[in-house]
Amino acid sequence: MRIPKHIAIIPDGNRRWAIQHKKEKKDGYQNGLLPGVQVLRKAKEYGVSEITYYGFTMDNCKRPREQKDAFKKACVDALRFIKEEGNVSILVLGNRESENFPKELKEYTTRKEIGKPEIKVNFLVNYGWNWDLSGIVNGKGVYSREISKIDLVIRWGNMRRLSGMLPIQSVYADFYVVETLWPDYADEEFDLAIQWYAKQDITLGG
Amino acid sequence: MRIPKHIAIIPDGNRRWAIQHKKEKKDGYQNGLLPGVQVLRKAKEYGVSEITYYGFTMDNCKRPREQKDAFKKACVDALRFIKEEGNVSILVLGNRESENFPKELKEYTTRKEIGKPEIKVNFLVNYGWNWDLSGIVNGKGVYSREISKIDLVIRWGNMRRLSGMLPIQSVYADFYVVETLWPDYADEEFDLAIQWYAKQDITLGG
Repeated sequence: MRIPKHIAIIPDGNRRWAIQHKKEKKDGYQNGLLPGVQVLRKAKEYGVSEITYYGFTMDNCKRPREQKDAFKKACVDALRFIKEEGNVSILVLGNRESENFPKELKEYTTRKEIGKPEIKVNFLVNYGWNWDLSGIVNGKGVYSREISKIDLVIRWGNMRRLSGMLPIQSVYADFYVVETLWPDYADEEFDLAIQWYAKQDITLGG
Repeated sequence: MRIPKHIAIIPDGNRRWAIQHKKEKKDGYQNGLLPGVQVLRKAKEYGVSEITYYGFTMDNCKRPREQKDAFKKACVDALRFIKEEGNVSILVLGNRESENFPKELKEYTTRKEIGKPEIKVNFLVNYGWNWDLSGIVNGKGVYSREISKIDLVIRWGNMRRLSGMLPIQSVYADFYVVETLWPDYADEEFDLAIQWYAKQDITLGG
């Protein structure tokens, strides 16, 4: 079976999930932590070599304070869980020159190996596509230059858009949409995405 | 109804259509001409203000000579048809410093008004996403800087990827996939795409 080398995860639907469960919007994010770990385990199982999580963006930070604090905390917690899984190589990428960048994550803005890495994990935190591209103007190339081309994007929560995630790495990515809201993640959805990807024809324009 | 201001069309499936109809691959492109005009009429009807056609890319030019000649010719013909529709403002964008850029289209690489323009028509011809971005390095911004943000991408032929089309303009675009191969285009598909778009929630990250 043709397995994607690099999968990007858009874990959308946390706020809609919170509303469905009669919670406050901010309370959806914590329920997205366990799915993050489950996806990582599945990716390792399939032999995927790189996984990118779309944490939060600079634009997301325009949301109400309590939501912002909640998704920032969720990202810090998510990274701790990923670290605890072990055998990963972690890179956190985003604009760190801002108070919206969690200080606990600064040490991961250069890649860190935990154990004997079986998979690269990239975590986009306070990321912005225009911030990313602004690296080009400075003559160093995009800030995300360490992140490889994405083969498969899986988006939970039924929206069909990239929402600014790594535009350069996504140019040829296959885009798979899951209806389920992210906190309701089930392993079977990941399996279906992999099976769907295996059937796609890739020509890269040729 | 919420109508997209700018729609991008990925007219894929010409070669698969040719094979289905026991023709040579190169013979699929001519059957994609009429759909191009039909889509333009529909877009005008809905009051869409800008439409972009993904003609061919620099990568596509790696294909066999007879296919390359065929899709180049189809693009020249398509532009003539669009012009004949009248009341459009036309821009052809792509790397014109190459023999793969049809010389008949060079005069449209600066925007040309035909009649009293009701819609902007952008035509990507010998386009490449990396070529486009290389404009940034030269300090002038992307070469596609005259093309606005895309609201809705409609791709025919059932693939779910951007294939390098305008990565900057597409960052927040909603992505609608039509199973039908492009030469079998039917107006109803365009209607359904518009109806689908109207139901999407847009937050632009906020």
